[in-house]
Amino acid sequence: MPGNTFGHSFRITTWGESHGRALGVVIDGVPAGLPLDTEIVQKELDRRRPGQSAVSTPRSETDKVEIISGIFEGKTTGTPISMMVWNKDADSSSYDNIKDLPRPGHADYPYMEKYGIRDHRGGGRSSARETIGRVAAGAVAKEILSIFGIDIIAHVTELGGIRAKEMPFDTIKEHLEKTPVRCADLEAAQLMLEKVGKAREEHESIGGVVEIIAIGLPPGIGEPVFDKLDADIAKAIMSIGAVKGVEIGIGNEAAQMKGSQMNDPFILEDGKIIAQTNNAGGILGGLSTGMPIICRASVKPTPSISKVQHTVNTKEMKNSDIIIKGRHDPTIPPRMVPVAEAMMALVLVDHMIRSGHIHPNSLLKQ
Amino acid sequence: MPGNTFGHSFRITTWGESHGRALGVVIDGVPAGLPLDTEIVQKELDRRRPGQSAVSTPRSETDKVEIISGIFEGKTTGTPISMMVWNKDADSSSYDNIKDLPRPGHADYPYMEKYGIRDHRGGGRSSARETIGRVAAGAVAKEILSIFGIDIIAHVTELGGIRAKEMPFDTIKEHLEKTPVRCADLEAAQLMLEKVGKAREEHESIGGVVEIIAIGLPPGIGEPVFDKLDADIAKAIMSIGAVKGVEIGIGNEAAQMKGSQMNDPFILEDGKIIAQTNNAGGILGGLSTGMPIICRASVKPTPSISKVQHTVNTKEMKNSDIIIKGRHDPTIPPRMVPVAEAMMALVLVDHMIRSGHIHPNSLLKQ
Amino acid sequence: MPGNTFGHSFRITTWGESHGRALGVVIDGVPAGLPLDTEIVQKELDRRRPGQSAVSTPRSETDKVEIISGIFEGKTTGTPISMMVWNKDADSSSYDNIKDLPRPGHADYPYMEKYGIRDHRGGGRSSARETIGRVAAGAVAKEILSIFGIDIIAHVTELGGIRAKEMPFDTIKEHLEKTPVRCADLEAAQLMLEKVGKAREEHESIGGVVEIIAIGLPPGIGEPVFDKLDADIAKAIMSIGAVKGVEIGIGNEAAQMKGSQMNDPFILEDGKIIAQTNNAGGILGGLSTGMPIICRASVKPTPSISKVQHTVNTKEMKNSDIIIKGRHDPTIPPRMVPVAEAMMALVLVDHMIRSGHIHPNSLLKQ
Amino acid sequence: MPGNTFGHSFRITTWGESHGRALGVVIDGVPAGLPLDTEIVQKELDRRRPGQSAVSTPRSETDKVEIISGIFEGKTTGTPISMMVWNKDADSSSYDNIKDLPRPGHADYPYMEKYGIRDHRGGGRSSARETIGRVAAGAVAKEILSIFGIDIIAHVTELGGIRAKEMPFDTIKEHLEKTPVRCADLEAAQLMLEKVGKAREEHESIGGVVEIIAIGLPPGIGEPVFDKLDADIAKAIMSIGAVKGVEIGIGNEAAQMKGSQMNDPFILEDGKIIAQTNNAGGILGGLSTGMPIICRASVKPTPSISKVQHTVNTKEMKNSDIIIKGRHDPTIPPRMVPVAEAMMALVLVDHMIRSGHIHPNSLLKQ
Repeated sequence: MPGNTFGHSFRITTWGESHGRALGVVIDGVPAGLPLDTEIVQKELDRRRPGQSAVSTPRSETDKVEIISGIFEGKTTGTPISMMVWNKDADSSSYDNIKDLPRPGHADYPYMEKYGIRDHRGGGRSSARETIGRVAAGAVAKEILSIFGIDIIAHVTELGGIRAKEMPFDTIKEHLEKTPVRCADLEAAQLMLEKVGKAREEHESIGGVVEIIAIGLPPGIGEPVFDKLDADIAKAIMSIGAVKGVEIGIGNEAAQMKGSQMNDPFILEDGKIIAQTNNAGGILGGLSTGMPIICRASVKPTPSISKVQHTVNTKEMKNSDIIIKGRHDPTIPPRMVPVAEAMMALVLVDHMIRSGHIHPNSLLKQ
Repeated sequence: MPGNTFGHSFRITTWGESHGRALGVVIDGVPAGLPLDTEIVQKELDRRRPGQSAVSTPRSETDKVEIISGIFEGKTTGTPISMMVWNKDADSSSYDNIKDLPRPGHADYPYMEKYGIRDHRGGGRSSARETIGRVAAGAVAKEILSIFGIDIIAHVTELGGIRAKEMPFDTIKEHLEKTPVRCADLEAAQLMLEKVGKAREEHESIGGVVEIIAIGLPPGIGEPVFDKLDADIAKAIMSIGAVKGVEIGIGNEAAQMKGSQMNDPFILEDGKIIAQTNNAGGILGGLSTGMPIICRASVKPTPSISKVQHTVNTKEMKNSDIIIKGRHDPTIPPRMVPVAEAMMALVLVDHMIRSGHIHPNSLLKQ
Repeated sequence: MPGNTFGHSFRITTWGESHGRALGVVIDGVPAGLPLDTEIVQKELDRRRPGQSAVSTPRSETDKVEIISGIFEGKTTGTPISMMVWNKDADSSSYDNIKDLPRPGHADYPYMEKYGIRDHRGGGRSSARETIGRVAAGAVAKEILSIFGIDIIAHVTELGGIRAKEMPFDTIKEHLEKTPVRCADLEAAQLMLEKVGKAREEHESIGGVVEIIAIGLPPGIGEPVFDKLDADIAKAIMSIGAVKGVEIGIGNEAAQMKGSQMNDPFILEDGKIIAQTNNAGGILGGLSTGMPIICRASVKPTPSISKVQHTVNTKEMKNSDIIIKGRHDPTIPPRMVPVAEAMMALVLVDHMIRSGHIHPNSLLKQ
Repeated sequence: MPGNTFGHSFRITTWGESHGRALGVVIDGVPAGLPLDTEIVQKELDRRRPGQSAVSTPRSETDKVEIISGIFEGKTTGTPISMMVWNKDADSSSYDNIKDLPRPGHADYPYMEKYGIRDHRGGGRSSARETIGRVAAGAVAKEILSIFGIDIIAHVTELGGIRAKEMPFDTIKEHLEKTPVRCADLEAAQLMLEKVGKAREEHESIGGVVEIIAIGLPPGIGEPVFDKLDADIAKAIMSIGAVKGVEIGIGNEAAQMKGSQMNDPFILEDGKIIAQTNNAGGILGGLSTGMPIICRASVKPTPSISKVQHTVNTKEMKNSDIIIKGRHDPTIPPRMVPVAEAMMALVLVDHMIRSGHIHPNSLLKQ
């Protein structure tokens, strides 16, 4: 069973390779009656697009989305939404000399082992350009969630060892796009930027942490015992290239805590049950509690670096060196922000439909 | 779409409640020709069983498994394997007084919100007893993997703030069951045991870390781009109650590394391509590299503590206090070890079949 | 990917072999709040049970169902419902001499080819006893449907060449269990009974037709374009052993009709849109129209006959003769009635949930 | 859960509306190493295309396919194959006046009930143009099957009451495209053509029967007990618009047969086990026997006829008349031939992978 589909009741299938003709996504399960146009989707793709700032590659990918099906008179009809972006700036020549040299930290080697054949141009299917489909679909998911008062934001909380201070949701939202590193703590952001610049100079790359927050989710979303909300979020986030760790709520710190510290007490507030703290990150027993969903992804440094690295020439089967040319982001987290938001949005819409909170066929029946 | 099924080509469905009549699992997709008997499964269930040591609850659950279908003359036939364990020692009275008091850190509140009705006895379906089905199915999965030279081991690497030293795979395997905390660093294990004892005295609980290692997996296992091996492992491990963080390979430390540190160089060794280091944890681009699979789970302290906690009486809708009685493990990681191994085994068999490495119908055709 | 699971939002997994220890089913996706007890399920199993009349085998299978999970204080809780029936009367000796002789018309030969191993006792997994799980799950599905005013009935419309007259729904319901052949046209039923008796005398078996009708389904149920309601019904009914043809509405006769005859005109009746005729069988474009769902299954004669037949001894690989001993129904349709009702009920509940007409979590929220 | 995806291990998702910008399909699960180009796919689409003959609508749809992903240097890479056809000749004006008049025999009314909104132009998503995606994907499936010596052919065996004589597989193949009605009995074909002409003159439409035959399938393909090969074929064929009945092998005639007539005896031939007759249509117990797979679909007459019909104006909620203008096929079976072949091919590849006969990742590993 292949793996290019994500979700059950809200289901996306992405397709396309880095240097192929185009990349795209088909979404099945968008309820009818959602106002939708390319602008809503393009806005998110523009956030994903490289070449926007000092922290990303200077490639000029315009990445203009086309919505080809599923909309009639400005509204979704309940039928599949097909969206695509034509590839333009695809110079594959810089990949020719590494065709038989699997890049360390990249998927090249296991892809070859799996399929026996590989589109090496720009990483082929394993390229981060695949996330175009995720972000386009995520834009639709976010649009649906907004109707239900659910808001998602991702931001960089650590980069190159610099940690941001904790910030309230509204501040994060306000500051997010003010700096190319997408860190809401603007002072930390400045230091992060310096780290990025230094990495670039040193032909190096740096890692970091992206936090994703969703507010407004009602309690009881998620499916025991395997399709727990946190389990599906973990899968969604871990499926993004370069992520090596996923935490929910207080996350790994939980390992050092005592029960009385970890447990979030319940209290009544305005006639509603809420948790006084949110170490759980809004999820208990795999179900939402109504508190904000908190998730963090630890992201490894960009594997493409222009330093000499050891690898094996798979054609000649001998040890070899590799120098990766081309234009590459010195760090991934800032550009991962819209992708992480998209994946969270996809999980939440899927589970909202599965839990009966969003009508599976039509928002007009809601 | 409900969530009590895990896997695609090797698929398990667990059922049963903590204080119900029985708990069990149906496995669909076990290839024919596997020698199997209850002993193989019971051995793993005995490792899961409480009442074994100072670190776990003194309840005497014998948990004797019965295999009811799918086996003929000592071998699997390719048809579903149904296994079950009858509940014996189910005294629900200690739960009566907390029927309307959702326990902090537990699934009680969101279950009630989701279903409008709840079997409160022993946590019902959200109890860790649900993992009986997982462990039984995992025993079958491990048996299959052993035919293909794949070995899985989980062990406690941190408990109550005590961290174990790194150990080689064989030592972990040798030491694992020598101490009730299931920590291969026997000195650290001693300190951990003291922490557990202290927690028990203080009516507290402590968290920790479980590491899962799988060796022998061939390269190319996993499915781009959503059903990545690490994504499915993350989901599997996060679906275990109390897990708040999942890491692959170097994990969260990747966020602080540089590209040249993180990337594992490839070299030829005995005519085979291997990685010189294994920061990736055996997975690149969501596919196995042939190196050991490394995964760590951060586990929160047991939410059931016998200290006064705040909660809300959901019947009277007023703030209230709760004291949880009954017998509870002061820490979860040692008992999670067989569950974590089981989940890893389930993911690996599923993906081995999906990748064409294990014949989906019959081991006799392999 | 194995195939012992049916449905998506309402999902059953059956297990067990004819002469194994037990057979059963796990249902995942039963909404919480449904009053349920064994009596409701047993009633349907009693209808399926053999040994009830002249038209079926005299085996005395009591087939007492046990519900082992998913119910609390008489109501479903939204967790999986596990049900099972222990096998009692399993004399496998009559199968010993045909162990290596695949029975014509039976699944023996391809099972052996597929799995390389086979539980030959009583047909193993390919036995009609597998339908115990279906009927038990179907009883739950029918119980849910009855809340929504949906009623399902199956009946025999043809047996051994004798065709029943058309009858109104209420008459079918009233007459159904009055005769062992389960034909609502009681005159035709008498002739059918004679055919059955004659077949038995001649060591022969006869085929027939089962019609399934569902009334009360609202319009718009079904999922374009592959999971059409009629497509899923066709799969459900064809998955019952011995079925060789499935028709919807006017069925195969449609091939001889003209457009103006076939099309059902719409008219307003009491402010509601209905179809004046129902050649479509209640389904257009794969979606329900609100008219009765009509489906017919053509059923082959029982393959087990006690006449000499040709087959191949698969051990010695030589042509051979086979005489099937044991007790077998001379005809299948009458006993298929509850199975066909069950499969229709399973499809309808699944699609009612998928279409948002039944709340996926809880009837208490409906 | 939406329904625009078909298959498990070989999975297609179709998208697009009749008068939208384009229609297409994404195939996930095509093994790597298959030589593929647009010509292979276009050839099948050309067979599906209308305007080819007297028996179909004179619309000039060129339907040129583009393969946009999944191929590198002329071979598949194991990544999703995205294919599309741009819509050109889409004059929607003839549909304006029937916007609120659901056409009898069409999906208009239940679509409106389901989604609350409807793209009425050319039938929107419920149009037969949706099958473009099926046929394109089927071309890929057939190409894979041909490597394994499996050949599929569909042909018209009845039209407007005229029945064709039985023909051997090779003759069907040879004659199939010699006549626009795609009937291998060329005499019957002539009579059928006259029936079509007469129907056109009378502003009527006629139904018929399409038979699909697959040869070369090894024994043991299919999955007990729900995903039986015949069950999945029934679903696949019933999911094609206008099909009202599906038969396997001898089909509905089985209802009138005796056991000794129906059962196909096994014999040894050249050291291989075969069945002497093939009433079973190549499937026993849901698994292939190695004999030809035989399936027939009964197809209703085209619902679009230019005669006055009764319907309800859904806007004004009053009884009304409808006259359907535009260009419509007077009969469906001839054009359904490539669609039926495609659906059979999709089912067979899916099950061949599921049964371990086709490597899921790569034909280079076969």
